[in-house]
Amino acid sequence: MNSSWLDAVKWNSDGLAPAIAQEVNTGKVLTLAWMNREALAATVKEGRAVYWSRARRKLWRKGEESGHVQVVKDVRLDCDNDTLLLLVEQQGGIACHTGRERCFHQRLQDGRWVTVEPVIKSEQEIYGKK
Amino acid sequence: MNSSWLDAVKWNSDGLAPAIAQEVNTGKVLTLAWMNREALAATVKEGRAVYWSRARRKLWRKGEESGHVQVVKDVRLDCDNDTLLLLVEQQGGIACHTGRERCFHQRLQDGRWVTVEPVIKSEQEIYGKK
Repeated sequence: MNSSWLDAVKWNSDGLAPAIAQEVNTGKVLTLAWMNREALAATVKEGRAVYWSRARRKLWRKGEESGHVQVVKDVRLDCDNDTLLLLVEQQGGIACHTGRERCFHQRLQDGRWVTVEPVIKSEQEIYGKK
Repeated sequence: MNSSWLDAVKWNSDGLAPAIAQEVNTGKVLTLAWMNREALAATVKEGRAVYWSRARRKLWRKGEESGHVQVVKDVRLDCDNDTLLLLVEQQGGIACHTGRERCFHQRLQDGRWVTVEPVIKSEQEIYGKK
């Protein structure tokens, strides 16, 4: 495949772009993670979300440990060419490493952050005993 | 108001955090912009999205020129405390400076980015003659 579409993305000074994942069935915004050029190419080739882990400094195939794969249905780029939006089917219904449906579970209420979404599976259930 | 909720956000090395805006009625992801501490404080105080413009290096009250204000209904923080999600009512039904409903109007199709959402109002109509 011609790779000019990868060149069209304005990668930041670290070679990264933020990628929002939205659940295509529920419409919920699940996660924001980061991609480099290789991650985006792998995402499109494999049809599942592949991110760049800034902490581990390597490609991270979302769900590789948990099974909570994000199957990619649509890939969007914004008007500035520097942010990606993925429409995904979230396998297992859990996107967050905390075992919640998604990462955006803290709501600002009366001047403090309150966790308003429940844990569906414990981290131990997801990842097993360490 | 106690400001410890502002301290809870893990601002990056530039003092910024990405903020996703999602339309509360349609569920569409509209924009990704950036906030610093002052922008988030102003957003919550004023009930409208206030971002930090990285290009202009100043606070940017979304809609200040276009009238396309984002009225904030809910503010979320992710599990890593480094990304914000705003649920907003998009005034005028246009979030993008190109006059489209939202910024994520380019879809990856057969190895290229295709603009798949229409211009609702021209930039000239929105901003007037320059």
